[in-house]
Amino acid sequence: MTDTTENSTDGVQPADLTLAEKASLTSGADFWTTKAIDRAGLPSITMTDGPHGLRKQRGTTDHLGLADSVPATCFPPAVGLGSSFDPELAERVGEALGVESAIEDVAVLLGPGVNIKRSPLCGRNFEYFSEDPILSGVMGAGLVRGIQSKGVGASLKHFAANNQEFDRMRASSDVDPRPLREIYLRGFQRVVEDAQPWTVMCSYNRINGVYASEDPWLLTQVLRGEWGFEGVVVSDWGAVNDRVKGLSAGLDLEMPSSGGRTDAQLIAAVQDGTLDKRELDVAVGRLIDLIRKAQTRPAIDGPLDVDAHHALAREVAGRSIVLLKNEGDLLPLARETKLAVIGAFAEQPRYQGAGSSLINPTKLDKAIDEIRALATGAVSYAAGFTLDGSGDNAALRKDAVAAASAADVAVVFLGLPAAAESEGYDREHIDLPAVQLELLDAVLAANSRTVVVLSNGAVVSLPFRDRVPSIVEGWLLGQAGGGAIADVLYGIVNPSGKLTETIPLRLQDTPSYGNFPGEFGHVRYGEGILVGYRWYDARDLDVAYPFGHGLSYTTFSYGDASAAVNANGDIAVTVAVTNTGAMAGRETVQLYTSLARSVVERAPRELKAFASVALESGETREVSLTVRRKDLAYWDIRVDRWVVEGGEYTVEVAASSRDIRSTVTVAVDGDAVRLPLTMESSVADLLTDPIAGPLVQKAMSELFGGAMDAAAASMMADEDGLLKILSSFPIGRITSFPGTPLTYQQVEALVATANAQR
Amino acid sequence: MTDTTENSTDGVQPADLTLAEKASLTSGADFWTTKAIDRAGLPSITMTDGPHGLRKQRGTTDHLGLADSVPATCFPPAVGLGSSFDPELAERVGEALGVESAIEDVAVLLGPGVNIKRSPLCGRNFEYFSEDPILSGVMGAGLVRGIQSKGVGASLKHFAANNQEFDRMRASSDVDPRPLREIYLRGFQRVVEDAQPWTVMCSYNRINGVYASEDPWLLTQVLRGEWGFEGVVVSDWGAVNDRVKGLSAGLDLEMPSSGGRTDAQLIAAVQDGTLDKRELDVAVGRLIDLIRKAQTRPAIDGPLDVDAHHALAREVAGRSIVLLKNEGDLLPLARETKLAVIGAFAEQPRYQGAGSSLINPTKLDKAIDEIRALATGAVSYAAGFTLDGSGDNAALRKDAVAAASAADVAVVFLGLPAAAESEGYDREHIDLPAVQLELLDAVLAANSRTVVVLSNGAVVSLPFRDRVPSIVEGWLLGQAGGGAIADVLYGIVNPSGKLTETIPLRLQDTPSYGNFPGEFGHVRYGEGILVGYRWYDARDLDVAYPFGHGLSYTTFSYGDASAAVNANGDIAVTVAVTNTGAMAGRETVQLYTSLARSVVERAPRELKAFASVALESGETREVSLTVRRKDLAYWDIRVDRWVVEGGEYTVEVAASSRDIRSTVTVAVDGDAVRLPLTMESSVADLLTDPIAGPLVQKAMSELFGGAMDAAAASMMADEDGLLKILSSFPIGRITSFPGTPLTYQQVEALVATANAQR
Repeated sequence: MTDTTENSTDGVQPADLTLAEKASLTSGADFWTTKAIDRAGLPSITMTDGPHGLRKQRGTTDHLGLADSVPATCFPPAVGLGSSFDPELAERVGEALGVESAIEDVAVLLGPGVNIKRSPLCGRNFEYFSEDPILSGVMGAGLVRGIQSKGVGASLKHFAANNQEFDRMRASSDVDPRPLREIYLRGFQRVVEDAQPWTVMCSYNRINGVYASEDPWLLTQVLRGEWGFEGVVVSDWGAVNDRVKGLSAGLDLEMPSSGGRTDAQLIAAVQDGTLDKRELDVAVGRLIDLIRKAQTRPAIDGPLDVDAHHALAREVAGRSIVLLKNEGDLLPLARETKLAVIGAFAEQPRYQGAGSSLINPTKLDKAIDEIRALATGAVSYAAGFTLDGSGDNAALRKDAVAAASAADVAVVFLGLPAAAESEGYDREHIDLPAVQLELLDAVLAANSRTVVVLSNGAVVSLPFRDRVPSIVEGWLLGQAGGGAIADVLYGIVNPSGKLTETIPLRLQDTPSYGNFPGEFGHVRYGEGILVGYRWYDARDLDVAYPFGHGLSYTTFSYGDASAAVNANGDIAVTVAVTNTGAMAGRETVQLYTSLARSVVERAPRELKAFASVALESGETREVSLTVRRKDLAYWDIRVDRWVVEGGEYTVEVAASSRDIRSTVTVAVDGDAVRLPLTMESSVADLLTDPIAGPLVQKAMSELFGGAMDAAAASMMADEDGLLKILSSFPIGRITSFPGTPLTYQQVEALVATANAQR
Repeated sequence: MTDTTENSTDGVQPADLTLAEKASLTSGADFWTTKAIDRAGLPSITMTDGPHGLRKQRGTTDHLGLADSVPATCFPPAVGLGSSFDPELAERVGEALGVESAIEDVAVLLGPGVNIKRSPLCGRNFEYFSEDPILSGVMGAGLVRGIQSKGVGASLKHFAANNQEFDRMRASSDVDPRPLREIYLRGFQRVVEDAQPWTVMCSYNRINGVYASEDPWLLTQVLRGEWGFEGVVVSDWGAVNDRVKGLSAGLDLEMPSSGGRTDAQLIAAVQDGTLDKRELDVAVGRLIDLIRKAQTRPAIDGPLDVDAHHALAREVAGRSIVLLKNEGDLLPLARETKLAVIGAFAEQPRYQGAGSSLINPTKLDKAIDEIRALATGAVSYAAGFTLDGSGDNAALRKDAVAAASAADVAVVFLGLPAAAESEGYDREHIDLPAVQLELLDAVLAANSRTVVVLSNGAVVSLPFRDRVPSIVEGWLLGQAGGGAIADVLYGIVNPSGKLTETIPLRLQDTPSYGNFPGEFGHVRYGEGILVGYRWYDARDLDVAYPFGHGLSYTTFSYGDASAAVNANGDIAVTVAVTNTGAMAGRETVQLYTSLARSVVERAPRELKAFASVALESGETREVSLTVRRKDLAYWDIRVDRWVVEGGEYTVEVAASSRDIRSTVTVAVDGDAVRLPLTMESSVADLLTDPIAGPLVQKAMSELFGGAMDAAAASMMADEDGLLKILSSFPIGRITSFPGTPLTYQQVEALVATANAQR
């Protein structure tokens, strides 16, 4: 928990400021800083893009704030870091980010982003962790803890349901309550409750028709009221639509500067009574708190230890790599293997995505250099293709084939060009460029001992996966990715990353296909709760590689899991995991739950906990995992709250979502949900009500006991069929049917009696 | 067009009635009749369940109105009739239904049902025509025309978005505007506009939270205002929630009787001013019109010509059968073939579905009898299984295998037991009973020359389809189905039915899977417009048999289609179709359209027209098909109206949705949609506006011409990328970004200038 005892009671209060001064605090001075009020001792503070590095601009900024920035360590973007399934690693990255921010006098780093990867097409997926909310939330909380441990604020973004770039500044994400709560908000909730970020950044989009920047339900009722958020809500840059509405809804700080236009609107609104002065005071109080907290940051002097942070970046990159396939143990390579390195990405690394998160790295490793540094055998290189598709492809391919033919093993670097993935627009397909696939086919024909290394910010289709013995998913690995790839290829690092998103066979198989990215300002989240692996599992669809998948150079065996409910209602699960191979390695143990015959639609399995465990060869460890009781809950639209359904839960301990190693069941007591009965309650509602049931049963037997004539009874296939039909009748309306022995008034009295007894 | 000149001007007017009399007209006297007002010469009229026969109850009714009824011809339910793709055939059935109604003094027959088969699980699918709205609407209109030609009213039902039985009396069908208009309402619109049914029956369910029975948008704005409906809206039996709200919304008649309770509510509401007296008068005027129209019915004296209608039922049943597969031309059978008829359905026909549409048939053909009547070879029979699963299955199977072994060909009757499909509840899977599948396997092992004949009201999975040479989909065929099956087996009737619904491989592949049937009073139509074949085509999913599929004992070849836009904007398409086989037959020529690069999400193809054409062996006919211009339109949520998008439409002439025989393109002029620009308009909106575009282009080049610095430019992958990002910015908000040369006020002025010029 962040220390939030520091507040405005020690110094200037909102009441000490003039209306104009208050208004001035609620929007930026320029692109990156807040306005100072010297008279009150309130300095300007600086915010800076993140989240996998510091993007502090120097000098004048350009129109979109995308110009050059000071050098900073480019850690693996969330797509990489997430694959570690390790919040402690995220925390270490956060600490490093905090240090770099502090050195540059940055008060708030604009990250992490914990939006759900709803579609692989979203151009900004590389900035997000996963298609799963718990994983996103746990990783995001780790990063926040790390950043804030250095007295620098994090900014949890983009709040909320911002899952595409297309029309992002206006489109309404039309999401039903359950997927909104259970999928799209759950990760944000986790970060707020576990790590209390200093700020939350509201997103550009609308949610069910209301701009996130002016949604009191989102910014106040849910974020502060339900989750206990204590910090400042800042707008995404340019997200403010109606400033007065926004302030009132809970948007404290508008960024960037509006040139005074919206400050004037706030002043006018207070003056004409449209805006309650107290609402402005609340926002100003929060802003003063934020500035104060920024002022208490322990000094960290520069210069930055570039090498130490680069080394951390390399370690994290190594943890980010996912070994998708390794037939015949082609990897790791022996140092003396005669190698052909093919593909322009080996020399021109794709290591981060375009847009506001683009870091100006302190160093940049190239895979070809790092491989050569480790190799003792000959290493040839052929570009094979150019990143922009220019040049003589046939000639490039010919050189590559010659290199592959002459080598023991070919390592082919494929990936998405930078233009394919960016903030601001989405992809239209998930395929690698045709020229790369053609190259690979040619290389494979020349040398079947081929390893593919991928550089991509979001999933790509892998039509070659059955023909290539080894596939290394390198995602975007930050500035030290080249070294990390070399480490993995030679087994210096034993790969341990797991997929945070399903790799589908085809775009057409993806959950939101046909509902993405919407049109005319609306996008319907029609797949509901069945996002990511939840969809593929529910529909029993084949995938290229499932969520949670990732191989190692060693093997792990699992014992039988045991599970028990704790005193606090959480489920404690333990399982013994053994490294059964010859090499030290790391396994991510995953825990999924499900509940059969639920009252609500459920995915076949949902990730609830995970642990990253390092094991020496032959070592066994007892791994403990905890399922929080609240994570079992579904959002109940009848009562607008989380409800844990009672029942026998299945707990699966797994090496991936489709590699279940041990299954146990555990009985969980449910939360009580008792709805008052009304005349619109169905016969079934009445019959299942613990109090009304017996009363109604008696009345029902009078209703239908002998009155149903034989013809009708035989027409219905069986008694069950009749009961099914009757059970859905609202109790008030069944009285309209001739022959019903109870009148409307009698039923009303029955309902009143039952309600009085609860 | 029905004659609607008959109205209340000739006789009693609402103004002539007392308030109590008026109120009395707005609800039933009992289960099936309206209240008479003798003083005013207004008789009671009778309504009776349908729609594929007359279910007039005699004597006292039971609680649900499901007791025994007078004998009537049971024609094939809509699942069968629809397969004919022939509205003229539907019209002939309608005429027969009109005659039977007239003989029984029935004023209104409660049908047809044109709800969309959203999921194969809906228990009432057998009462509906198709997963396609145009097909549903065209067939429904044919039936209405036929019924009403005899002076009997039809009742178009269940209006609207009533696509499941689960919680049908309360569940809200949560549907977005486009699927609601383009899929779920389009069939109703077609019937209203083409055939003006006397009544429309509102459904039980809610739509987007509002009960259909009290939705002024649905019952008045859309139905009467947009579509021009002139008749009476009647509630489904028990669908009234709030009577006063309902009356005001456009619900004229509540059925059945409320015992005076709701009449009193209307009287009180008029008296206390809650309900405008004129609204009641409008409803009463419509009810008087309906009673008058019923009084003008030409007399048709009984008794019913049972044999003639049975013969028609047999003809229609023959047209309803779909030959799914016929490998090696195993069918038709020679009369002398030594046959084993297997399966209890051959002797105990399943010919209609349970619920309010259940007819007490005048006769009932059994397939085994009809086969024996036509056969000259030996015909053995073995039940193979019992319909209720009781009995000694092993012994039954053994007898069946023995019969199959001894025969040249085995004809195995499989199907769903009556309890599997009913009004009032939905199915939970689409599988045939295991005992039947086991029987089939045993028979196939004994005799590979096996024909499967299916009896089912909605699709079933066909796991045996690759192993059985011939499959006859017999749906539910009405009382003469047994004869029709014999006709098809022996080639007396050459099958011509086509699938009105896709037969999927698995339930998990169906569009609404995971979103059906909803929970806690809500069901999200998350698949949007991608219903039925639109889904399978969009997601490129394999299916067992595609929409529109159906074989014949002959073959048809198609010439090259030609297409041209008429003076009225419709597309006229002609294609030559030739019967290239040795037998006379009938082909359903189908026409699908599509538009590439549309501004809205579209299905890969949509059925727009079809024609059923009888052809002698060797005969060629030029088939004309018309695509109505209005059927090309999508529902535009920006302007809340139908819009025909201009462009090059692809017209596919096809033998099924996946057997395209000829493709042409035709250029269609679009409807103009010009939206006023606002500060929330995006840069792209402005740039593409025909008037504002050039103005803005000029301003934009001033904005970004030289100002974008090189670093930012290079960071963006390319100029396209930058433009993509910028194009989604709302023009009002981009002025917040530092360095933007235009102020908010200048942009406002630009927008005003552009709007003034439109």
